[in-house]
Amino acid sequence: MASLPEPIRSLIAALARLPGIGPRSAERIALHVVQAEAGLSRLLAESLLAARERIQHCTTCGALTERQPCELCGDHRRDAAIVCVVERPTDILSIEKSGTFHGRFHVLGGRISPTNGIGPEDLRVADLEARLVSEPIREVILALGTDVEGDATSHYLAQRLSKRSVKVSRIAHGIPAGTGLEFADELTLSRAIEGRRAM
Amino acid sequence: MASLPEPIRSLIAALARLPGIGPRSAERIALHVVQAEAGLSRLLAESLLAARERIQHCTTCGALTERQPCELCGDHRRDAAIVCVVERPTDILSIEKSGTFHGRFHVLGGRISPTNGIGPEDLRVADLEARLVSEPIREVILALGTDVEGDATSHYLAQRLSKRSVKVSRIAHGIPAGTGLEFADELTLSRAIEGRRAM
Repeated sequence: MASLPEPIRSLIAALARLPGIGPRSAERIALHVVQAEAGLSRLLAESLLAARERIQHCTTCGALTERQPCELCGDHRRDAAIVCVVERPTDILSIEKSGTFHGRFHVLGGRISPTNGIGPEDLRVADLEARLVSEPIREVILALGTDVEGDATSHYLAQRLSKRSVKVSRIAHGIPAGTGLEFADELTLSRAIEGRRAM
Repeated sequence: MASLPEPIRSLIAALARLPGIGPRSAERIALHVVQAEAGLSRLLAESLLAARERIQHCTTCGALTERQPCELCGDHRRDAAIVCVVERPTDILSIEKSGTFHGRFHVLGGRISPTNGIGPEDLRVADLEARLVSEPIREVILALGTDVEGDATSHYLAQRLSKRSVKVSRIAHGIPAGTGLEFADELTLSRAIEGRRAM
């Protein structure tokens, strides 16, 4: 039986290592690339190498950046007194899109997960503590996930930072904007009720 | 508002040109690549360039190959008297997987599509006729798609090849293996009835 030539099979194997790309998608993409104009594969190859070489983590906040410090840490119009702690660099974009936060960020690099062997020492917790000393930070907003590990990590951080003279808050949990109660699960509803505010 | 650094945005734009990759998938892949070990981006870049540089179309049958003639055209155990005409190089693999065809192939490179401005002269029809002269071909099996354009292209080819001393056949249309009649649409069922065979 005929099979695909080796360079295509290697490309399929490489593509299948990307998130969200299964064997069928990888095959489809590989076959498209080898039959498309050569410019597409060159553009892709160059973009991949350029992005990987030029992008680094900000040594202060952990955001993805081309330069040190990053755009956010270097922007003196942003409020240096408030730091929002997120799990991943991309969470910064989500919060920026909301347009309601004008402080600094701190990327934790994940969350505490005993089942995956990830403890506080694997995250940028000590870096956060160092920033509390060197920067005029008065409030730390925890904006981690709302699942069990996100909750545990938030509680761990709140406990650990309680010795510092800094206010620690956590973003509100509740029903998403624009939906009815019928779409909210029980846990979300109970958190929305717990988090009720006077009108 | 902060946005992604330029090299990541360029990579997202390049990835979004791939089939089946929307803006969200492209962003997810790009962010994965810049944060993964550098080996992944190098592997991908090299695989892309190698596949694009080393893969060409077989000058005889049009299959994707690293050498001329391709593995299939160069295999003298295959029956040179029967040629199966397919639209795309990848259709060869589908037929090979079925394990029921042991002749040669001919890739048309598409199908006649007046709406897209694709006529017979844009396809490898003349190449097929040249092969009928230079090779000992006795039967041409048309294995094109079963939609309107596939039908039209099959009928055009059957008509054009009718002047040659070659048998022209078309693969059967009918209900797929392993499914009940309830899953077959009307056209498939009517073709299955038309194509009925004595038992």
